Amino acid sequence: MTVRSEHDLLGDRDVPAEAYWGVHSLRAKENFPITGMPISAYPHLIEALAAVKEAAARANEDLGLLEPRKAAAIVAACREIRDGKLHDQFVVDVIQGGAGTSTNMNANEVVANRALELLGHAKGEYEFLHPNEDVNLGQSTNDVYPTAVKVATVFAVRELLKAMSVLQDAFAAKALEFRDVLKMGRTQLQDAVPMTLGQEFSAYAVMLDEDRSRLAEAVELIHEINLGATAIGTGLNAPAGYAEAARRHLADITGLPLVTAANLVEATQDCGAFVQMSGVLKRIAVKLSKSCNDLRLLSSGPRAGLNEINLPPVQAGSSIMPGKVNPVIPEVVNQVAFEVIGNDVTITMAAEAGQLQLNAFEPIILHSLSESLTHLRAACMTLAERCVAGITANTEALRVTVENSIGLVTALNPHIGYTAATDIAKEALATGRGVAELVLEKGLLPPDRLAALLRPEVLAGSQTG
Amino acid sequence: MTVRSEHDLLGDRDVPAEAYWGVHSLRAKENFPITGMPISAYPHLIEALAAVKEAAARANEDLGLLEPRKAAAIVAACREIRDGKLHDQFVVDVIQGGAGTSTNMNANEVVANRALELLGHAKGEYEFLHPNEDVNLGQSTNDVYPTAVKVATVFAVRELLKAMSVLQDAFAAKALEFRDVLKMGRTQLQDAVPMTLGQEFSAYAVMLDEDRSRLAEAVELIHEINLGATAIGTGLNAPAGYAEAARRHLADITGLPLVTAANLVEATQDCGAFVQMSGVLKRIAVKLSKSCNDLRLLSSGPRAGLNEINLPPVQAGSSIMPGKVNPVIPEVVNQVAFEVIGNDVTITMAAEAGQLQLNAFEPIILHSLSESLTHLRAACMTLAERCVAGITANTEALRVTVENSIGLVTALNPHIGYTAATDIAKEALATGRGVAELVLEKGLLPPDRLAALLRPEVLAGSQTG
Amino acid sequence: MTVRSEHDLLGDRDVPAEAYWGVHSLRAKENFPITGMPISAYPHLIEALAAVKEAAARANEDLGLLEPRKAAAIVAACREIRDGKLHDQFVVDVIQGGAGTSTNMNANEVVANRALELLGHAKGEYEFLHPNEDVNLGQSTNDVYPTAVKVATVFAVRELLKAMSVLQDAFAAKALEFRDVLKMGRTQLQDAVPMTLGQEFSAYAVMLDEDRSRLAEAVELIHEINLGATAIGTGLNAPAGYAEAARRHLADITGLPLVTAANLVEATQDCGAFVQMSGVLKRIAVKLSKSCNDLRLLSSGPRAGLNEINLPPVQAGSSIMPGKVNPVIPEVVNQVAFEVIGNDVTITMAAEAGQLQLNAFEPIILHSLSESLTHLRAACMTLAERCVAGITANTEALRVTVENSIGLVTALNPHIGYTAATDIAKEALATGRGVAELVLEKGLLPPDRLAALLRPEVLAGSQTG
Amino acid sequence: MTVRSEHDLLGDRDVPAEAYWGVHSLRAKENFPITGMPISAYPHLIEALAAVKEAAARANEDLGLLEPRKAAAIVAACREIRDGKLHDQFVVDVIQGGAGTSTNMNANEVVANRALELLGHAKGEYEFLHPNEDVNLGQSTNDVYPTAVKVATVFAVRELLKAMSVLQDAFAAKALEFRDVLKMGRTQLQDAVPMTLGQEFSAYAVMLDEDRSRLAEAVELIHEINLGATAIGTGLNAPAGYAEAARRHLADITGLPLVTAANLVEATQDCGAFVQMSGVLKRIAVKLSKSCNDLRLLSSGPRAGLNEINLPPVQAGSSIMPGKVNPVIPEVVNQVAFEVIGNDVTITMAAEAGQLQLNAFEPIILHSLSESLTHLRAACMTLAERCVAGITANTEALRVTVENSIGLVTALNPHIGYTAATDIAKEALATGRGVAELVLEKGLLPPDRLAALLRPEVLAGSQTG
Repeated sequence: MTVRSEHDLLGDRDVPAEAYWGVHSLRAKENFPITGMPISAYPHLIEALAAVKEAAARANEDLGLLEPRKAAAIVAACREIRDGKLHDQFVVDVIQGGAGTSTNMNANEVVANRALELLGHAKGEYEFLHPNEDVNLGQSTNDVYPTAVKVATVFAVRELLKAMSVLQDAFAAKALEFRDVLKMGRTQLQDAVPMTLGQEFSAYAVMLDEDRSRLAEAVELIHEINLGATAIGTGLNAPAGYAEAARRHLADITGLPLVTAANLVEATQDCGAFVQMSGVLKRIAVKLSKSCNDLRLLSSGPRAGLNEINLPPVQAGSSIMPGKVNPVIPEVVNQVAFEVIGNDVTITMAAEAGQLQLNAFEPIILHSLSESLTHLRAACMTLAERCVAGITANTEALRVTVENSIGLVTALNPHIGYTAATDIAKEALATGRGVAELVLEKGLLPPDRLAALLRPEVLAGSQTG
Repeated sequence: MTVRSEHDLLGDRDVPAEAYWGVHSLRAKENFPITGMPISAYPHLIEALAAVKEAAARANEDLGLLEPRKAAAIVAACREIRDGKLHDQFVVDVIQGGAGTSTNMNANEVVANRALELLGHAKGEYEFLHPNEDVNLGQSTNDVYPTAVKVATVFAVRELLKAMSVLQDAFAAKALEFRDVLKMGRTQLQDAVPMTLGQEFSAYAVMLDEDRSRLAEAVELIHEINLGATAIGTGLNAPAGYAEAARRHLADITGLPLVTAANLVEATQDCGAFVQMSGVLKRIAVKLSKSCNDLRLLSSGPRAGLNEINLPPVQAGSSIMPGKVNPVIPEVVNQVAFEVIGNDVTITMAAEAGQLQLNAFEPIILHSLSESLTHLRAACMTLAERCVAGITANTEALRVTVENSIGLVTALNPHIGYTAATDIAKEALATGRGVAELVLEKGLLPPDRLAALLRPEVLAGSQTG
Repeated sequence: MTVRSEHDLLGDRDVPAEAYWGVHSLRAKENFPITGMPISAYPHLIEALAAVKEAAARANEDLGLLEPRKAAAIVAACREIRDGKLHDQFVVDVIQGGAGTSTNMNANEVVANRALELLGHAKGEYEFLHPNEDVNLGQSTNDVYPTAVKVATVFAVRELLKAMSVLQDAFAAKALEFRDVLKMGRTQLQDAVPMTLGQEFSAYAVMLDEDRSRLAEAVELIHEINLGATAIGTGLNAPAGYAEAARRHLADITGLPLVTAANLVEATQDCGAFVQMSGVLKRIAVKLSKSCNDLRLLSSGPRAGLNEINLPPVQAGSSIMPGKVNPVIPEVVNQVAFEVIGNDVTITMAAEAGQLQLNAFEPIILHSLSESLTHLRAACMTLAERCVAGITANTEALRVTVENSIGLVTALNPHIGYTAATDIAKEALATGRGVAELVLEKGLLPPDRLAALLRPEVLAGSQTG
Repeated sequence: MTVRSEHDLLGDRDVPAEAYWGVHSLRAKENFPITGMPISAYPHLIEALAAVKEAAARANEDLGLLEPRKAAAIVAACREIRDGKLHDQFVVDVIQGGAGTSTNMNANEVVANRALELLGHAKGEYEFLHPNEDVNLGQSTNDVYPTAVKVATVFAVRELLKAMSVLQDAFAAKALEFRDVLKMGRTQLQDAVPMTLGQEFSAYAVMLDEDRSRLAEAVELIHEINLGATAIGTGLNAPAGYAEAARRHLADITGLPLVTAANLVEATQDCGAFVQMSGVLKRIAVKLSKSCNDLRLLSSGPRAGLNEINLPPVQAGSSIMPGKVNPVIPEVVNQVAFEVIGNDVTITMAAEAGQLQLNAFEPIILHSLSESLTHLRAACMTLAERCVAGITANTEALRVTVENSIGLVTALNPHIGYTAATDIAKEALATGRGVAELVLEKGLLPPDRLAALLRPEVLAGSQTG
């Protein structure tokens, strides 16, 4: 292997000649052999880092701190990265010590070496353009990294919002389709009172709609960045105007309405926005999981279960039981939900462990948050497309359960009283007879009055799906 | 003991003659001997229940469903409860099965029996005014309980917001007091660059300010109620206009801008707002805990620690080590934070476990949320009053650490370059000598230029506390 | 109020003349107004503290460090506490800063003042017998507190083990009762293959049996104490032989086979045994919750659910739906399980937050652990007595589901092949016809062979309940 | 692309001709596009699956159910897999619905197709050897998958145990090296009493030793398998003797002392052993994290921190602060610990969500457990090799802090009394003077007596490192 020699605080090391990354990335690779997953697994992060480096270079050029030729080379290198051309050069592990320093240095090195090439130099000729002194000019990991993580998070959230919207539409379409399918509603798994299957599915759609609103609110907070804070938020070494210029360029590059935090010391150490974001993802996970639990319950059977709906079969269910089809799509969504909830605890602990002017544990926050966002997105899409869209209802069987139900008596409660209604319910349960016939037999209501009270539109209320 | 006999679905039971609670409460007491803590431990909940019962009675009277004499007695009984006169009659355990039914029945029975007395009847003479048929008219546990929990939560949040404000002010006062105290900032517990102690305390104040904003946003969602949903949200048995009338009266009684959920089926089964609220409380806990970790670090010593600040002594620290004073106030806040974070997991699991049209586990959600809210409130107050207000700074010692620091070299970075600066840092570390003298010795900067760069206001930036 | 004046590091304070607690307890009460729940809420802890104080006094007497008259008075006071006579004097909050110092000082003061009385002195006359110099002689909170927490935990675990045994027996009795009740087994909520209801209940009994074994193993670790470690485990101020003498007396007093940790420095800072204990409680909670989820599923209905078993009604289920009975006992057990799982996170965070030679957060560990232990115990008892013991089976309906099931085809798999079996299953599902008639119709098996394969004892295997 | 057509319950599909996986794997790949990480990421699992398939084939051959030629081909294919030759054919996602069915089917297909080749047939010619009817003979996912997960877990635990041993040795070596380095011990971050640095490091070694014991106990439980349970534990379709034969062969192949669970119905639905294992991993994580927190604290500085020890520099610490070296190795270990703790919550939720005869969520349990095990292993190794081994002590500075400490007074406590000692401590703190000189000045002890009490071996006790 052809190599070039690079130098850092600890001495000299050979790196592969063709590598755009350098000695800092090399040491980080060696120091953090944890997951085997390089940061290139998070394309949004790589692109966000390139955007930040480009914005900083432009700001430095504006302020006369970086000569235009160097700035242009840096900008060009960053754009190549954002076009996906150098992702494989981002080699440090997703779980790493050091508050993201290794990620930032990896970016500095890749940008510098590509910029050097564009300027006609060989990789490693840092005397012409230096990873720290030029690419990282006016920056610190402590502002670059959280800013990049935020930009990456915004992009990932936008994709999740779209997937949630697809799933919401799938539920809403079913709500419409099932609007006239009468069924028994249940509380505490016990027969309660009638409703429509459309109302049931409508609730899932409404949940997603609310969750999307909460997510949209939470992502607003993520637009607040600390670029220009440098080391601990005092802005040391960043000249007047730099923070604003860099923010403006970054907003321009990313198309995001970014704002600079009012107090940079606080913003540099604070992980509150990530904790909040993770909390909202957990909320989404909780409700998705609950909805999937319901889908699995409602489709249980086919003969010894509730058997109210049918999920579309997507694969054979068993290696031993012929003909068995299982609710594998809701099941995989449940598992993603459990992962998101676990990730929230990880993020919570990492955020709590911050000390003084910095949280050193942002890499695991990024990792967990990225995982939650991308897996939730995949879960929503697969649930929408491979399950909800193909759900059918066992309409006739549902109608029969309503007619046989004891819960009908609740509708008569205001008309015959709680005490009489309780007696009817007990007798129906004990004898297996129907509520309607018992009410008529005891002369508690005249037949036409009873019939009117038991019409579907009365029972299921005005809250149609 | 004198008793009266009461009847329910399961048969007859004696209850103490003087008890305002009845047979349903009795069975619940027996069924749930879990914590020994009755729901009266949550005064906000008792008052909220009474407010809901009063609102429902007024709405029923408006709609001609409840005769004015009965309504007046119910309203009067509810007001006595809200005045704190009957809290000891709320006897069911805070952890209970049944989605809050036992809590609702306890309220129905207490209101009914007190109303009966006001009407000149004896307790238990339900033929004149019935817990279910009159007090609970048009209601279901499924709408009454979540509505009461929400009203109670709003009141508890308001108290927490006030306590957070007190703590924020305490930190802000210290930020002002310490605005000129120069010290070393740290990242990853390693000396970084200078800042002021005022900036450090200002960050804590800003964190609380942001957290208050987030909490204020989260509590908005709690104002959405499902009163009028009855059993599963279909509004069965609730006449047209009831939901709106009840909401209006409840808003009037509580002074809260309550709104009725647009989709009552969804609202009845959804615990999302509680999960979100708990997530925000967890965020607050995380940051409070981080701040207390910092206070304990900064006050470590007195001789073998950082010894930057002094916490006011509030009790002897040790049963064996004379003169030892410990940071017991921050420590108790840490522990409350850990409890809140654990409660968030409990709430998450309870919310995820909801099935179909209802979540049966709302009592543990209420319990955990109430605990988190009231303990956080106490923690903020005790931290503000017994710790932060009395903190003093070891100003002179702090100044010395800045002057001896290697981190000063960072400020020279833009002027002598990262590589030269690294060499100075290494030499300073190896020899124990000062950065300034080494820079002068090597002729890297003229003395006056160096002095200007190392002025406190330059070093600590414009982000003053 | 009559008062006496006491003195500490911070100055003089009045305490009520009749109080056995003194100035240290007073300050702690004021410093930690968090939960309102005093440590007397944990009788096991109070008794364990008294046992430790008695053991230390006896050891000090043995070693000639404490004069016999004083020792006798201390021992007598401790025995009164263990008899429950002074529990109300343990007034500091369960959540407190300071690694248990306030709890230890509360104990020192109560023991000292009661011992003073027994010696004929007035409370507060510490010149005759001193809370620190006599009662706490040779001790530190850092060894007294964890030792007392461990002793208390052992007692609480023993009670939980008994309750689990009662619940196991209840499940086992049902397993026997239902040993011949054939039903459909399910995987992923889909009909799988036949089994007996006895097998189903037997699994719950076996789970508890295994959990009891795990709990018994975990409690072994809790018998390792650090008494004699004093401040940080170096044993400073504790004379040779003290640790062993104190351990021996404590083992004698409590009847527990206590051992002294081999490395006291490690033992003093380590919370591993508590984390492990909590992990095992979480395991128990997980499986109890799963069992209760099953009971709720199996008893769902009565008409629109699985309706396989009937839980005994223990209270009316609804304030609006007449005749409704809900599975409130399993529901309350689920909620306790969620609490235990949340407490495990709290304990985890508290344990992780220990620093250097001590974990300052043991009070919240004690609090959470005590809560988990006592609530689990109550949950097991109420589940056994108010639910499992009264469960009945709907035997006939269960038999019909087996005969109608498609899952029967699995039993034929080895005899007709997976492919043919799959075709039969698909046809049965599509047409609603039975598996047996389709197999006969297609001539895949002769009638007598088929009948033999479908006998209950063949289908449900040898794993009878 | 050349393809072959395969058939399943849902119809025909083309799979790549060269693929060893078939139609079931294809559908699973399409159904679960969640993480992008195929199960081949867990080599232990692939090898364990192959071992199970081989054991089953051998057992089936023993019992005369599988002809020797087929059995030999299956065994040969399994051995190739265990030799790592076909890992890339295990293509289904690590997060998948269906209780592991897709993983089992993926294995059945790969084994079948490779066995077909070995028998001289083309891939896909299942009429000669069938994935379900031959490779899966007598098995169900419900017994194969948990058995394979357990075998894989045992292997991963063994590797973790080795890494923990390496780390323990590294700490123990430092304990020995630092056995005479006197320093101040701390409780609650406040100066307490003297100890040696050797004692401090010894505690970390002892913690790991205890944790290894706990892990070794927990892995014992993992040796209990349910092979032979088939679908739900009733053993349907598994002939007499099959379970025992399969277990024996599997024990033989893996070299593990596997036992068959006594109650297979229970064993098939139970995830208790995984919950327990994860709980122990969490315990290990908690204590590793605590140790790393300590290392970061002790090495804080170099000038404005405790600066007691020096971690070896492994990379430049900052992109902006020259010369800064950060504790990146302990930091990455902290992050792994947070991940393990989050994974424990995920596993807990997944285990709790099991229903009736099966837990459908075992794939996420496997995923989380594998992640915890492998990341902890990497963390222990990197901590041992890149950090602990190179730690040095600032011996002289440590000695000075002991001599200046106020905590020395504790050693005098038994000789001058708690009250006098408290006065000395207060005066030392207020004046900045030393404890020894004040004691002499006040004539509380004669000089030679004092000197004897303050000798290092007395102060640090007999608990040497």
